[in-house]
Amino acid sequence: MAETYLGYRPGDDDTAWGKYFNPQMAELPRHAVIALEHGPQADQAMLGFDSAATLLDEGYQQTENGYGALRGGGFHVAIRTDMPGVTPAMWDWWFGWHGSESSRYKLWHPRAHASAHWGDSGPDGAYVGRTSIIEEYLGSAYAKAAIAFLEPSALGLDESRLGTDVAVCARLGSSEVPVDIGWFIHHVRAVPGGAEMRSRFWMGGPYIGVRRGNRLADSVIRPIAAHQLPEPRDLLVHCAQEMNHLASFLPKIYAEFAET
Amino acid sequence: MAETYLGYRPGDDDTAWGKYFNPQMAELPRHAVIALEHGPQADQAMLGFDSAATLLDEGYQQTENGYGALRGGGFHVAIRTDMPGVTPAMWDWWFGWHGSESSRYKLWHPRAHASAHWGDSGPDGAYVGRTSIIEEYLGSAYAKAAIAFLEPSALGLDESRLGTDVAVCARLGSSEVPVDIGWFIHHVRAVPGGAEMRSRFWMGGPYIGVRRGNRLADSVIRPIAAHQLPEPRDLLVHCAQEMNHLASFLPKIYAEFAET
Repeated sequence: MAETYLGYRPGDDDTAWGKYFNPQMAELPRHAVIALEHGPQADQAMLGFDSAATLLDEGYQQTENGYGALRGGGFHVAIRTDMPGVTPAMWDWWFGWHGSESSRYKLWHPRAHASAHWGDSGPDGAYVGRTSIIEEYLGSAYAKAAIAFLEPSALGLDESRLGTDVAVCARLGSSEVPVDIGWFIHHVRAVPGGAEMRSRFWMGGPYIGVRRGNRLADSVIRPIAAHQLPEPRDLLVHCAQEMNHLASFLPKIYAEFAET
Repeated sequence: MAETYLGYRPGDDDTAWGKYFNPQMAELPRHAVIALEHGPQADQAMLGFDSAATLLDEGYQQTENGYGALRGGGFHVAIRTDMPGVTPAMWDWWFGWHGSESSRYKLWHPRAHASAHWGDSGPDGAYVGRTSIIEEYLGSAYAKAAIAFLEPSALGLDESRLGTDVAVCARLGSSEVPVDIGWFIHHVRAVPGGAEMRSRFWMGGPYIGVRRGNRLADSVIRPIAAHQLPEPRDLLVHCAQEMNHLASFLPKIYAEFAET
């Protein structure tokens, strides 16, 4: 396994996509800052995991941007990314393309992403049903994660309602031990002039589980896994930063690589 | 020892410099607010203590404003202060002048500084090689600190590269027990229209040490000292506030006192 490190080193940009590496990231959008300033929200004001299917309803939900502890344990994070000039199809392509090369993954968050490869070493072009093995910082905490991308129906979403919109759904866990620590959805829908991404995370508490485990393993692992959870605020900031950053050049990189 | 207290009491301004005491401090500059909003950063995106010498390189580093936990323990804080009309020489003068009188030290941060005197009771005019014994708040925490100012070369900085710029370097510790808890550098360099200060702190973890101690004392003291560390965000805010505040009248007070 090659050495992992943050950002590009001399020569790392010697790829067809290297020119898109930009270590300068934009400020957090104002609505993300407001969500941080407001602090933790009531769990009843946030989208419940069992109601994830309603993400596909028209309009906006009560907490499109915010975070908070859940009464049943764990926490939720929600954040919106406005993306002029972007289409949902571009994100569908990105999720199938970025995971084969660390030098692609690093384009997304130049201050936090360290490495990426597919668990199955397969080719570019698909992500559903595959696991992305990544290393990244969430705030100051370093995570070695396994992101298993799933059919939206696995989280209860009615795929017939998606149309040309996209819902990237995943089980998020550790790449070192067979433990999952959360779920997420990035719902990307077309809006006038571009697209918006509505991200939702459910982490910790009842969303921790041992892969191929049993009830006993679960009760032992859960308290340990809880120590590996990111801070809710750090997760919100990270997601807002990477999605805004990529959206700023996604139309260009899509135009250059999606057809080849 | 005289009673210590925050701010000026009636009569305290009966000095040649008392008129510079202004309890009203400016808002945090926008770039400091953004750093707080972004929260903790990846340690690899921050300046490593062993690379402190690169602070003298041209341009800016990846994290000029930010904070975060370090994987080896402890934390880092970086913050920039823009200072129109100020020269590096003014800061060099200030560090040699302020430490003889609490009523001078309080000008710098009227909401946090309580007392200052030199460990050697020597005269004004120099700070390198001397220890400033201070009492101040960092956030809500009250610290009794000993700041031992060092030659920049002690932190690996090549002094021949400084020219007319200034690097204020110090070992920061307790004035009550022989324990140091961190290092800092304030690199002040000329820019068009004035100067900028680039402050860097490395605190806690491996940056804790017992003065004239041994390995055993070190292992006992380190966990205790860790409890006396400031919060990274509080340290960032404190530094941003005091440097901006002083910079707003440093040219005037320098003109009045530096030549006398």
